[in-house]
Amino acid sequence: MNAVLSEQLKEILDGPVFVDLATIQPDGSPQVSPVWVKRDGDELLMSTTLGRRKERNLRRDPRASVVVQPFDAPYVYAEVRGTVTISEEGGQELIDELSVKYTGKRYAEFNPEAGRDAPRVVVRLTPRKIVGGL
Amino acid sequence: MNAVLSEQLKEILDGPVFVDLATIQPDGSPQVSPVWVKRDGDELLMSTTLGRRKERNLRRDPRASVVVQPFDAPYVYAEVRGTVTISEEGGQELIDELSVKYTGKRYAEFNPEAGRDAPRVVVRLTPRKIVGGL
Repeated sequence: MNAVLSEQLKEILDGPVFVDLATIQPDGSPQVSPVWVKRDGDELLMSTTLGRRKERNLRRDPRASVVVQPFDAPYVYAEVRGTVTISEEGGQELIDELSVKYTGKRYAEFNPEAGRDAPRVVVRLTPRKIVGGL
Repeated sequence: MNAVLSEQLKEILDGPVFVDLATIQPDGSPQVSPVWVKRDGDELLMSTTLGRRKERNLRRDPRASVVVQPFDAPYVYAEVRGTVTISEEGGQELIDELSVKYTGKRYAEFNPEAGRDAPRVVVRLTPRKIVGGL
């Protein structure tokens, strides 16, 4: 059974909120990093590059957790737990869309060194459980 | 070998920055939640209550990761990985100190329902590795 996002959580995710994405390291310990996010229905789309730590972790173990905490209302939050799929298709389009959402600029303009990055991938999280007040 | 915090990271941790603490669930998947933090030298002190999910997780597996991302400078961050010890000693003092740091009020005043909580514990993280730009 998948979990559904509340209307309030959807609204926050549709704004430029930073989220923290947690994955599992090869030794079973946790790894976390901040990422941009886009909502697609009840799923969360995040961007990373091929070969980066979180991408390698998620290919090995697709279980992930994302914390959403608005900067301007830090005492409400949601932890969205679920599993991810990773796809190269749409990877460049997603990072450009996220960059415009968060910075108002295309990604190559926001991060001029991006051209040297490995290819972008789409990390799609399907929520299984949501905890916290949102 | 323990890791040491940069001066910039120390300065951020000494201000009222929210951090995300990641732990490992019994099934090996990640769990993350936002917490207040206090620095003690190169160690991070966080507060939770006996029996709460993160406390039970950390007693079973003390490996943790903390993401520090300033609200006003979201493109710099640090991920502090390490292991924790948990102690009931000083638990109430720490939550009161954190509450004053973040809200200007003692914890019982900030959260009037706190009296019904289980006892407070101190989660002390000793950094092993720090990644990110801070």
